[in-house]
Amino acid sequence: MNPVFPIPDRIELFAVPGLGEIAPGDALGVALCNAVTQAGLAFEDGDVLVIAQKIVSKAEGRLVELASVIPSPFAVSLSESLDATPAKDPRAIEVVLRESRRIVRMDAGLIISETHQGYVCANAGVDSSNVPAGFLSLLPVDPDASAARLREEIRVHSGRDVAVIISDTFGRPWREGLTNVALGVAGLAPLQDYRGQKDEQGHTLSATVIATADELAAAAELLMGKTARRPAVVIRNFPALPGSGSATGTGADLVRPREKDLFR
Amino acid sequence: MNPVFPIPDRIELFAVPGLGEIAPGDALGVALCNAVTQAGLAFEDGDVLVIAQKIVSKAEGRLVELASVIPSPFAVSLSESLDATPAKDPRAIEVVLRESRRIVRMDAGLIISETHQGYVCANAGVDSSNVPAGFLSLLPVDPDASAARLREEIRVHSGRDVAVIISDTFGRPWREGLTNVALGVAGLAPLQDYRGQKDEQGHTLSATVIATADELAAAAELLMGKTARRPAVVIRNFPALPGSGSATGTGADLVRPREKDLFR
Repeated sequence: MNPVFPIPDRIELFAVPGLGEIAPGDALGVALCNAVTQAGLAFEDGDVLVIAQKIVSKAEGRLVELASVIPSPFAVSLSESLDATPAKDPRAIEVVLRESRRIVRMDAGLIISETHQGYVCANAGVDSSNVPAGFLSLLPVDPDASAARLREEIRVHSGRDVAVIISDTFGRPWREGLTNVALGVAGLAPLQDYRGQKDEQGHTLSATVIATADELAAAAELLMGKTARRPAVVIRNFPALPGSGSATGTGADLVRPREKDLFR
Repeated sequence: MNPVFPIPDRIELFAVPGLGEIAPGDALGVALCNAVTQAGLAFEDGDVLVIAQKIVSKAEGRLVELASVIPSPFAVSLSESLDATPAKDPRAIEVVLRESRRIVRMDAGLIISETHQGYVCANAGVDSSNVPAGFLSLLPVDPDASAARLREEIRVHSGRDVAVIISDTFGRPWREGLTNVALGVAGLAPLQDYRGQKDEQGHTLSATVIATADELAAAAELLMGKTARRPAVVIRNFPALPGSGSATGTGADLVRPREKDLFR
């Protein structure tokens, strides 16, 4: 677990405008650096770049054409029995099953599964929004590796050491609405551990570990929107421990191991 | 459900320093206005004030002295059977039970319950950190009412129309670490509903409702810390629909009804 950052008095967030369409094979880090420059902005050391999973998946070619998918008998059966409106395409269900290593709940028209990366989310992160018609997007195979690559690309192209968070909006039990969370993390401690520290009254804090990377992702989403072409946001003046690299942890640390989880 | 805000290009967050100790009966809104002024800052119309539950509970006298609590037989029994280290004080367990209307999970030394307000969280939000020794803090009885009162106090004292979010850090299934979420909300739509809108490709978004108030709370936590006396943060330039008041919804809208929840 990681120590606690110094707490900043003030932070600011700004969206990276004008990124444009990203296609499989595009150098996303270079495109980001160019978009930042064209907007009259510049990366600074210690910035946190939060980027939506969808655009990373596009750059990495993590798209599946529905027409190429042959649904299994189980996917066809689910398509008929799941109480979804509109009914789910059995080919889309097949893609969800392929991205899943385990089903957690299957009810109310929803498939909530554990992905091969370990995330628990609806439809294994498979999504049809903001991708070409007839295609579905998949989560990056290894979001931490994607974040590390993107960070290195930005370092090479801009000379700046930024932390990178690849985010996606996930639902959660008990509360309405989705919030943005961190999938891949590079150059930033994802968790801050206050255990053993003392509060104002000298009381030792026993159970407080804050998911900082998820809070950074959530903050960035406020500037993303879902229909605007604004998939990248920079958070400035947050002490993200630049340069400490992978020693500070990755997004995988945010995934609770199944044996510690009371809700799987 | 509420319509979508315009998406800002840039937001900033700053902590309110020097709030000082708050005691039961203190006018928290006045204290906040004074702290803001003394720091050379000023509220602006449309600011979002995020304030930690703990300080609201202190101002409202939502503290219980452990010495005054007589544990029930069930609390004593739980204290012995719960595998917690250090063992939980049966009087603290009694307080948790009194704040709960239903137990959701009881395992691994944890009591996860549904509070009378409907939140699902560890220990019903009962907490010993940052309160005087021998006392426990409870969640506000009605956080939305607390938020509305605080908003009105600030309006009267500063002349500014700010939105107010009363926040607390909650754990969640599947992911490590706590994140800050919105309990009480006043002057701000807690959820943004993108359903029915079209994405860049003309695809209609079907399942996207964003828990904006939770994301604002999470963003603010980045400036709070757990041991620093920094329970209040202002978010500026987020289009919080000032003046539209309770018509825009409250924190209660963020609580998923039990019958819609697959994990209770």
